[in-house]
Amino acid sequence: MVGRILIVDDVATNRIVLKVKLGAACYRPMLAADGAGCLAIARAEAPDLILLDLKLPDMSGIEVLRHLRDDPTTRDIPVIMISAMSDPASRLAALAAGADEFMAKPYDDLLLMARMRSLLRARELPADVGPRGAALQALGLAEAAEPFERPVLIGIVAERADPTAKWRRDLAPLLPDRVVILSREEALEESGPAPDVFLITSRIGDAGLRLMSDLRSRPETRHAAICILQADASTERAAIAFDLGADDLVGASVDPRELRLRLRNLMRRKQRGDRQRETVQTGLRLAIIDPLTGLYNRRYAAAHLAAMAERAQESGHPFAVMVIDLDRFKMVNDRWGHAAGDAVLIEVARRLEKNLRQGDLLARIGGEEFLVALTDTRLSDARTAAERLCQAVQERPIPLPGGEPLSITVSIGLAVDDAGAVGLEPVAEVVNRADLALMASKNAGRNQVTISRTFA
Amino acid sequence: MVGRILIVDDVATNRIVLKVKLGAACYRPMLAADGAGCLAIARAEAPDLILLDLKLPDMSGIEVLRHLRDDPTTRDIPVIMISAMSDPASRLAALAAGADEFMAKPYDDLLLMARMRSLLRARELPADVGPRGAALQALGLAEAAEPFERPVLIGIVAERADPTAKWRRDLAPLLPDRVVILSREEALEESGPAPDVFLITSRIGDAGLRLMSDLRSRPETRHAAICILQADASTERAAIAFDLGADDLVGASVDPRELRLRLRNLMRRKQRGDRQRETVQTGLRLAIIDPLTGLYNRRYAAAHLAAMAERAQESGHPFAVMVIDLDRFKMVNDRWGHAAGDAVLIEVARRLEKNLRQGDLLARIGGEEFLVALTDTRLSDARTAAERLCQAVQERPIPLPGGEPLSITVSIGLAVDDAGAVGLEPVAEVVNRADLALMASKNAGRNQVTISRTFA
Repeated sequence: MVGRILIVDDVATNRIVLKVKLGAACYRPMLAADGAGCLAIARAEAPDLILLDLKLPDMSGIEVLRHLRDDPTTRDIPVIMISAMSDPASRLAALAAGADEFMAKPYDDLLLMARMRSLLRARELPADVGPRGAALQALGLAEAAEPFERPVLIGIVAERADPTAKWRRDLAPLLPDRVVILSREEALEESGPAPDVFLITSRIGDAGLRLMSDLRSRPETRHAAICILQADASTERAAIAFDLGADDLVGASVDPRELRLRLRNLMRRKQRGDRQRETVQTGLRLAIIDPLTGLYNRRYAAAHLAAMAERAQESGHPFAVMVIDLDRFKMVNDRWGHAAGDAVLIEVARRLEKNLRQGDLLARIGGEEFLVALTDTRLSDARTAAERLCQAVQERPIPLPGGEPLSITVSIGLAVDDAGAVGLEPVAEVVNRADLALMASKNAGRNQVTISRTFA
Repeated sequence: MVGRILIVDDVATNRIVLKVKLGAACYRPMLAADGAGCLAIARAEAPDLILLDLKLPDMSGIEVLRHLRDDPTTRDIPVIMISAMSDPASRLAALAAGADEFMAKPYDDLLLMARMRSLLRARELPADVGPRGAALQALGLAEAAEPFERPVLIGIVAERADPTAKWRRDLAPLLPDRVVILSREEALEESGPAPDVFLITSRIGDAGLRLMSDLRSRPETRHAAICILQADASTERAAIAFDLGADDLVGASVDPRELRLRLRNLMRRKQRGDRQRETVQTGLRLAIIDPLTGLYNRRYAAAHLAAMAERAQESGHPFAVMVIDLDRFKMVNDRWGHAAGDAVLIEVARRLEKNLRQGDLLARIGGEEFLVALTDTRLSDARTAAERLCQAVQERPIPLPGGEPLSITVSIGLAVDDAGAVGLEPVAEVVNRADLALMASKNAGRNQVTISRTFA
């Protein structure tokens, strides 16, 4: 989809000039002549970016911006405020209302385009990681009980101590967040938490831009918001800074209040991105976890077994698989209800987990069925482990939600893949043998371990 | 984690010089003096990048590279081959074996660092999107039956037609993939599938680098691999090109065979990235989908209901919720087994789905329980819809896996949130009323719809 840019200006000539420029740059321009038109189009069409004139006939651009930021459907659309005036009050008001940039006419087209690219690039994560955002929204809401509350850290990077001391003085009383002064090396080294926002001062010139590229190539700082503080205000250099990945850029003579507002906007954007990335992680975790017990699910177990079998083939070390089934579990559900059944499953999962090693796989692969896989394990050790699991489940009754304790046992089928003896036995075969051994345990009276031996 | 770079060189001085340079650039260098050492460290430590000397005492660098590319644990580590020789045969052999770059001594440090940054930046996706890659691996394996087989498209971008015609001639017989020649505008506009790999020629100079930034800011081309073909071989400009996002860079006099190998490596990298992104999408989808019926799961339904209720509050339009439960389903499982029960659930889900509108929500929220949410729906329409669903399930018996057809019915509880009448009724209350209405349907003999009315 070509970037759709909403141009909001009450002067027809201005709209048309911008429309032609954006069209030539291969964007799809949309037009609005007043605030009401802007809000209507923004809500209905969700443009990728808005170029918003400060002065409009029906309401001020600031007011329009506030409405945009209040509405969940338009909240995240980047807005560049454009104005004939460049008085500090207007700039500060626009930034305070949540403008991503303020450009006074006449502005440089090259710089406007670079600024647009940087905002469009920063915006793409949500569309990237969910079917029309639905998954992200659902997963985000599912996890809403766990809010993201890490304090923000701002890192100021400069070569000399003096000028940054001034910045720290300027910023410290204005920003409630922690500010640290870093050398270039300290910014790149891991020591404590990485800053969320970097302010890289112009004293280090091109080395500053290189540092930005360096921060972008390292996992801890890849998603940091970076503001470049530039001594020379060449628009060409500014455009390159944006294309190199700067999220914002200010001149050395910037008003500390403006810098504070810009940093605040960057912090918000960084936190929004962090939340989205967390949601993706959550989603991936949920896809491989059994929600009831917190153990890995069947899907993950299958992938883990396949990888384990491949490694065993290469190393020649045997692995063991257990299939574990709760005895007479249907009766628990029928007699005490599903809540009691769930409590039993959770407690059994906990006991199994406590009696396995860190690297062992434990998964819930069916209603009352678990799977354990042990790497580099001989038959005798696997049998000991299986008997320990049997014992751990039966040794103490499990208290039901009502308080009544219930004696529970498990039956286990165990199979070892001795690669050396049988050659390329497929992992499905090993699990199948464990399944058959489990049936033998059931038939022999439950609460016991049966071992399947290979045919060799 | 600071980037860990493995330096492989048999000359101690070379190792130490590079170690000092990389340490100053805040990387953590690791050292190997021969091929066997390189392979052992690469497998055990999984460095982020390898600088590999072409000539080693025990085997050639090419041979080491082949081993690295054959082993799943080291396959994706970027490798820059470093050599005292720059003969075409060595370059081609290194690239053919899967080297990401070939640098002949003496090389420019600035350029080496920029190249390293570009490779490290491109590499970060996997670590980013999975708990230690486990989720990705599991989900990737879970989806392995659906291989990624889209043909690769290469786009050559240049301002004049003549020089590109030469490139097309050079490349066409060598690359089995489709090659298209594009103007700058065509590269940015959506018309047909976006190229996977762009080759941007130097004739357009800085505009070429700007085009790259533009491609990176647009969703369709954001993840494309980009190779810059540079007329002037200034190392500073080359370093900037890498920091601006180039994945590869060649001089205008490049040997077509070398270009072909480089493009092939870029295609592979692009496809690998596509697969990883698909896996993330899959994972997110799996987290909100019920695997048996393919309907949304309870988690998604909760988020959807919350969003729907919020919209209804704003618009003042009512929404309806149905809770649908299969009648006597336990009997199906007990008498015909779980496979029959699953077949019934799948068929009921299909019939419900067929009888709802595109925008309606249908989710499986429990074993035999479904939820339907209808936006902008009055009570009379919702009742008609519910009765249609009842009818759709009962009208034809459902064939069981064995072939025997079984008559199935559902009971439905329906509640409408008439925001205008009751004000801020929480969505949980509406679902709760639908649940109570469902119980009334069950008590009244099943296979029917009961409506819960608000107290107003």
